[in-house]
Amino acid sequence: MKINLNRLLIDLEKYAEYGKNELGGITRPSFSQADHQVRQLFIEELEEMGLKITIDGAANIWGKYRGTGKKKGSIVIGSHLDSVPNGGKYDGPLGVLMAKEIIKTIIDHNVTFEHDIEIVSFTAEESNDFNLSTFGSRSFVGKLTAEMLQEARDSKGSLLHNELEMVGGGLDKFSMMENMQKDKKAFIELHIEQGQRLESANISMAVINSVVGTYRSFVKVIGEPNHSGTTMMVNRKDALAAASEMILEVERYCKAKGDVVGTVGRLNVSPNAANIIPGQVDFIFEVRGETGEKIQHTIDAIYEVWHEIALKRQVNIQQEVFLDQRPVALDQEIITILENTAMEMNEPCLTLPSMAVHDAAHMAKITKSAMVFVKSIDGKSHCPEEYSHPDDIDRAGNLILQGIVHLDRTLSGI
Amino acid sequence: MKINLNRLLIDLEKYAEYGKNELGGITRPSFSQADHQVRQLFIEELEEMGLKITIDGAANIWGKYRGTGKKKGSIVIGSHLDSVPNGGKYDGPLGVLMAKEIIKTIIDHNVTFEHDIEIVSFTAEESNDFNLSTFGSRSFVGKLTAEMLQEARDSKGSLLHNELEMVGGGLDKFSMMENMQKDKKAFIELHIEQGQRLESANISMAVINSVVGTYRSFVKVIGEPNHSGTTMMVNRKDALAAASEMILEVERYCKAKGDVVGTVGRLNVSPNAANIIPGQVDFIFEVRGETGEKIQHTIDAIYEVWHEIALKRQVNIQQEVFLDQRPVALDQEIITILENTAMEMNEPCLTLPSMAVHDAAHMAKITKSAMVFVKSIDGKSHCPEEYSHPDDIDRAGNLILQGIVHLDRTLSGI
Repeated sequence: MKINLNRLLIDLEKYAEYGKNELGGITRPSFSQADHQVRQLFIEELEEMGLKITIDGAANIWGKYRGTGKKKGSIVIGSHLDSVPNGGKYDGPLGVLMAKEIIKTIIDHNVTFEHDIEIVSFTAEESNDFNLSTFGSRSFVGKLTAEMLQEARDSKGSLLHNELEMVGGGLDKFSMMENMQKDKKAFIELHIEQGQRLESANISMAVINSVVGTYRSFVKVIGEPNHSGTTMMVNRKDALAAASEMILEVERYCKAKGDVVGTVGRLNVSPNAANIIPGQVDFIFEVRGETGEKIQHTIDAIYEVWHEIALKRQVNIQQEVFLDQRPVALDQEIITILENTAMEMNEPCLTLPSMAVHDAAHMAKITKSAMVFVKSIDGKSHCPEEYSHPDDIDRAGNLILQGIVHLDRTLSGI
Repeated sequence: MKINLNRLLIDLEKYAEYGKNELGGITRPSFSQADHQVRQLFIEELEEMGLKITIDGAANIWGKYRGTGKKKGSIVIGSHLDSVPNGGKYDGPLGVLMAKEIIKTIIDHNVTFEHDIEIVSFTAEESNDFNLSTFGSRSFVGKLTAEMLQEARDSKGSLLHNELEMVGGGLDKFSMMENMQKDKKAFIELHIEQGQRLESANISMAVINSVVGTYRSFVKVIGEPNHSGTTMMVNRKDALAAASEMILEVERYCKAKGDVVGTVGRLNVSPNAANIIPGQVDFIFEVRGETGEKIQHTIDAIYEVWHEIALKRQVNIQQEVFLDQRPVALDQEIITILENTAMEMNEPCLTLPSMAVHDAAHMAKITKSAMVFVKSIDGKSHCPEEYSHPDDIDRAGNLILQGIVHLDRTLSGI
């Protein structure tokens, strides 16, 4: 039994038409018109496949293929269908459409499972206008509650609740998710790597054993705004020059360490005028690492140097931590099954931590969870150039297909 | 004959009420409601003084105190009444209100001049929403023409022409300014230093002998946007890290040179998201120096290092020059008169170049022009903390008052 690669590739192209922009990329954030259309298409297709469809409070879409066992619960496979602005066609949809392809293959071959096999498409996995990434999975596992989200609005002032209702969800339906949780016995997510480790190793896929922790803080560098002509170099307290030195220290330290990544991706200068020395710079400082300890060491070491920069330049640095996501270990039982399955299939496969957060990291809170990564060409993601080779996709898809066959037996104690 | 310092200080406070914001600063850009109000007040006060008022095409306000000579033309004194957002009460208004005080003093003492003594308040000297700083003086001397300004609009789409008409100007009145030019025999502008050279030397004032040149370019640093978690440090082409190194080189070079200033005051990151490595950074690079040669050397030396940074980091740097203002020499005859007057008055006085562009730099195109700077405390300007000490203001005002007495005779050949 093997997946139908061609059918999957056609499906990927078909879904990529929704939200396609003039740059050739896909702009399909959750709750956009393109998202509405793709949801409708997806639900219609699941119905055609005969799956039992549920839309939960977070508007996650679930489709169940009944197993033969009695109340065994389900093995869930899936990912998300939303995209970043001007993103690619693999990040998210590959995992969802592969799940659909796997269930189609199972149906085609008339294979029976003890457990239900369930597909899921999570809502708003990507960073979005509500500032709620991995919204669907976090809501499903109870990390986000209806109470917390009561007043959540996007930048235009639209209530999240209203947006959810338009796609079949709603805060009043959040309570149903706690019941649904019990039913989920395992979760496997297929995703593109979004990095270059597999490409460097020339290997198609990896089983993911953990999801790195992410630390983010708002950093304010306060100098002194002044006239760019009349303020001599020695009299300046240039917040941007100070921030520049701080950014280079982040780069230097993380490069030297090798096992953490540090980034300043968002930065705003104030007053931001050609003829005024920057008086203040606000940026977000992010560190990701495999253990909480590595992250903490990085933050401490960098902050020590930042402090020296502040003293030397007579600027003030303020820092406010707003995200301190601990690393998540994925389920060793599923990891071992997937590793063994790859060996049986004679397919080389690495075991790696994920450097990005995915829905699987949250699902790990309520059920046995794991992930499979497929090689990304040039490590590109969140851009129209995002690409994974069909052969690699094929291998990863069959690994999951065979993996759930084994998992179904193991979970049933067969 | 001495100026009435107290009257001037009361006047400064009175004008500072217009556009005062909740931060204690003054937000009074040209064409704002506060500007409309201050213009009306100013015109009423000039009328009360018996001056002959003219509003030209650029809505510059002129008030003439008649001299006894026949068609001798006028000695003009003045500056501007507009402010930057959240600016102080001295930058601009001090020059205009001192001119008013000087003419009041002359009237009080019933002193006669061969030349007309004329006050001017130029429109939109500061950076503004039309991207036209020193608008009034540039228009008056013909550097900006009605043709060039036909389609000038602010960020809200309002036509400059309409804004001008609301305050008595208009593009159709631009032709009158060429005629008016002939009448102007000299221009002296009083302004705060906006730097710390006078404070460091502990001297109240300076005669300005030149205005530095200003070079500005748009710089684009193009790297590669990528996922901040999954892209290892060694695989990054981080446009912001590259820009940081470039900014520090600007600072390093100019600091070492000492006689040029270089600034990156405006910088924007793209896509500017916490979890995406900056793919592009756009900034404005500014260099100011006393000679075109010094500016060129600075640009060349910095660009050489930038090029190395680009090669090392595999990023692309593009540069587009959009301002290349040559340094302007001010009028040696007036400079000498002012220097000699200060000596006569037994007041210490430096002779310095101006590191900022002022209306006087443009007026120099059509008439003998000079400036007097008064000491700024802590060199602060364009902020609510802007301050000059009354004693220093008094000295500078009397220098100009006595200076124009001498100038009136010299220009008349007496």
